[in-house]
Amino acid sequence: MKTIVIIGAGMMGSALAFPARENGNTVRLVGTHLDGEIIAFCKKNGRHPKFRQDFPQGVEFATVDGLRDALDGADFVICGVSSFGVEWFRDAILPLLPDGLPVLSVTKGLQDTPDGRLLTYPEIWRERLDALRKTNPLCAIGGPCTSYELTAHDHSWVTFCGKDRAALERMREALGTDYYHISLSDDVTGIESAVALKNGYALGVALTVGLCRRFFGNEELHYNSQAAVFTQAVREMQRLLEIQGACTLENLSVGIGDLYVTVYGGRTRLVGVLLGEGLSIGEAKEKLQGVTLESLVVAERVARAVRLRAGRGELDPADFPLLLHIDDILTKNKPARIPWDEFTDIG
Amino acid sequence: MKTIVIIGAGMMGSALAFPARENGNTVRLVGTHLDGEIIAFCKKNGRHPKFRQDFPQGVEFATVDGLRDALDGADFVICGVSSFGVEWFRDAILPLLPDGLPVLSVTKGLQDTPDGRLLTYPEIWRERLDALRKTNPLCAIGGPCTSYELTAHDHSWVTFCGKDRAALERMREALGTDYYHISLSDDVTGIESAVALKNGYALGVALTVGLCRRFFGNEELHYNSQAAVFTQAVREMQRLLEIQGACTLENLSVGIGDLYVTVYGGRTRLVGVLLGEGLSIGEAKEKLQGVTLESLVVAERVARAVRLRAGRGELDPADFPLLLHIDDILTKNKPARIPWDEFTDIG
Repeated sequence: MKTIVIIGAGMMGSALAFPARENGNTVRLVGTHLDGEIIAFCKKNGRHPKFRQDFPQGVEFATVDGLRDALDGADFVICGVSSFGVEWFRDAILPLLPDGLPVLSVTKGLQDTPDGRLLTYPEIWRERLDALRKTNPLCAIGGPCTSYELTAHDHSWVTFCGKDRAALERMREALGTDYYHISLSDDVTGIESAVALKNGYALGVALTVGLCRRFFGNEELHYNSQAAVFTQAVREMQRLLEIQGACTLENLSVGIGDLYVTVYGGRTRLVGVLLGEGLSIGEAKEKLQGVTLESLVVAERVARAVRLRAGRGELDPADFPLLLHIDDILTKNKPARIPWDEFTDIG
Repeated sequence: MKTIVIIGAGMMGSALAFPARENGNTVRLVGTHLDGEIIAFCKKNGRHPKFRQDFPQGVEFATVDGLRDALDGADFVICGVSSFGVEWFRDAILPLLPDGLPVLSVTKGLQDTPDGRLLTYPEIWRERLDALRKTNPLCAIGGPCTSYELTAHDHSWVTFCGKDRAALERMREALGTDYYHISLSDDVTGIESAVALKNGYALGVALTVGLCRRFFGNEELHYNSQAAVFTQAVREMQRLLEIQGACTLENLSVGIGDLYVTVYGGRTRLVGVLLGEGLSIGEAKEKLQGVTLESLVVAERVARAVRLRAGRGELDPADFPLLLHIDDILTKNKPARIPWDEFTDIG
């Protein structure tokens, strides 16, 4: 049995407490500085405020000021912060971690740099660890897995990626169950890029749902246009993975699975449908007040890097009509209008 | 304007009469020997019995004995027979076609041979045309497009494939509209294989819908397992395309889009859900009496070829756990049970 410390009481980090604890491990869920109320709720009710299922018996809860104690005897740490907590995790948490303690991140995303590169979060953290002269293995989880379905024990298949195979094996042993299925990969850039890239594209597929509602009054029978945008998304994701130097079918297929689940699973879909129905991004955000739109940030970052590198002649913007249209909607307030002729090359 | 003869009054062939006629072409829909009642209905009502939308004004209808007249002045023929009509089209129709008249097929499928090859329908027809010393260009349509959505004017994106680029261009000009978007490809084996291979895999994804209903009582929130099987389907389709000597991302992405739409669109899904809920294939077929289960036939053929070639040591059956499980259900009456551990390689 292992001792597992989950840092960040968001939905995904918290959901991992289920397989972790059901396997008999000691599990300590530690909130960030923003999670005080969530942790109080969990302590009081034995349930996360966003979940229907109670936590398994015995999960321990702590606020961030209890982190040092929580880390005592830890075998590995799960980083469950959102994209917005990546710098906080780097600056506030990494210095506290004992050297060598492995980290498993569920935070999906990419960060663009001023010169147009797209960095995975483990890459960003590795730089800091190097500066701290620490060697903690940085592993990550990619693949289609929504938190509420995990807590419901639906079958989910994810990939743990990292350079330290032994650490990955231990994590899989600690977390794998008969419903949480885990593959391993040493390609962190590939897996993490694939599952981050899907964000904008899920919005793209959702646009067609809203457009169909607008023009046909119902969405029930209209999957042709969803499937068409899904096809284009696959093509653009493949190009982006090539640019990341990480285009393997394994990576791409994990990204495609993640795209599939994201089209259905929640917040990104909500925004996409509203945009397709005719709202501007400003109006959609207002309507969804309080909803965290992490995925939109990632889409904007990827588009910014693509535009910058296209400007330098390093890639052809005609390879990314869907991404650039989504970015136009998000950053230039343009209306949703799928660029079909650019997909078929007769534009 | 062109004169287009559609042979076969099934749903997909008939749906193509919409863009064809809306573009101002002369369109003649000719039923097969099994389509007598459908053609009578179309003539009387100006509507296909399975469609909600009326045909555009001016579509002409004929029974198969009127085929010779219908072919008079034709610019190209659309073959709209089902998988079960492939031999009929070869034996009864190809000899009647004027030499050089191009054919555009919407029939999706593959035929296995005794030595374990998987032939596309254009390959089967080409053999006969060669014997007849005819040179008719054989083109085909692949990609996600359900007929009822096409008749509703939902945006659809398909690929016309064929070796005769000029013929493809003319077909695209005749059929392309502001809602029917067409790419061109010269890779008939690749496109046709990709869109046929999806059949069994759509059933696989649908299994999880039924399994979730069985174990959770509702399907609404359960996409993780769908996405997981979708991921595995992408991997196996890629391997099969490699075996076909036709694995390009373009082909694969068209197959993936087609898989996406098939998961939602109709008959294959119905069977998969019933199987997932616990019915045997015999019980499911009985419950769906009268429903044409074309896709199951194709899945069985592909599995038969894979088993045969695995037996000869030409491929590794461990690359196809999903396909072989689906085949076990279809041909050996086995219960639905997703082989998760074979996906993650820890089985």
